[in-house]
Amino acid sequence: MFKSIAHIGVAVKDMKSATELFRKLFNKAPDHVEEVAGQKVATAMFRIGGTAVELTAATDGESPIARFIEKRGEGMHHISFVVDDIEAELRRLKQLGFQLIDEQPRMGADNYRVAFLHPKSTNGVLIEISQKAE
Amino acid sequence: MFKSIAHIGVAVKDMKSATELFRKLFNKAPDHVEEVAGQKVATAMFRIGGTAVELTAATDGESPIARFIEKRGEGMHHISFVVDDIEAELRRLKQLGFQLIDEQPRMGADNYRVAFLHPKSTNGVLIEISQKAE
Repeated sequence: MFKSIAHIGVAVKDMKSATELFRKLFNKAPDHVEEVAGQKVATAMFRIGGTAVELTAATDGESPIARFIEKRGEGMHHISFVVDDIEAELRRLKQLGFQLIDEQPRMGADNYRVAFLHPKSTNGVLIEISQKAE
Repeated sequence: MFKSIAHIGVAVKDMKSATELFRKLFNKAPDHVEEVAGQKVATAMFRIGGTAVELTAATDGESPIARFIEKRGEGMHHISFVVDDIEAELRRLKQLGFQLIDEQPRMGADNYRVAFLHPKSTNGVLIEISQKAE
């Protein structure tokens, strides 16, 4: 079951200037800053109500974020949903014909297990589903 | 003050097939369906937790959504934030150098007064701020 939206991921080139820009926009400092080595990204999370905007910058030219920006420019990158049972959702979505980027969950930021669906099967929207690790 | 995220707007070509796709994805029917004549769009809202995904399709080739899809393809289009005082936020953001698409709020879907910021000044993210009409 899709319970909530954990965050909206925004791809940025330069984390320092983007953090300053969104600090001005939201009139608050980021709530959480983290590097996710496995995905070669740095993140800055601004919590807004019960959800968040997560800025993501590549820390390596081989990062998917670097490739995304090269192709599409900076901007909205993905929507991350919290589900109650990530394995059950992956099975359900696969059966319905959604294309999975991750057949099995892997570790993302903020101690969440995450998996991505391919935007080709979701009207161009890159969708992450996530569940807090026990 | 930015209080919450009202919805994430997703640009789609065909409302009927997109609604069916997201119905399967979220395993629920849309919560609200509306045509916004002023913006020449049809919308379908899926509430997820305290926020929502809003599918938006053009009802006219001159709609900004039609032009967006022509240029960028289907996918994430904007983030809509709820603010407590839309006029005060527009003044604050303008003073900080953010580029306003709407200097004054106008009527959007679901009885909200809305205004857009230009993505050129917000790292490529089209941002809507909104406040429920009295």
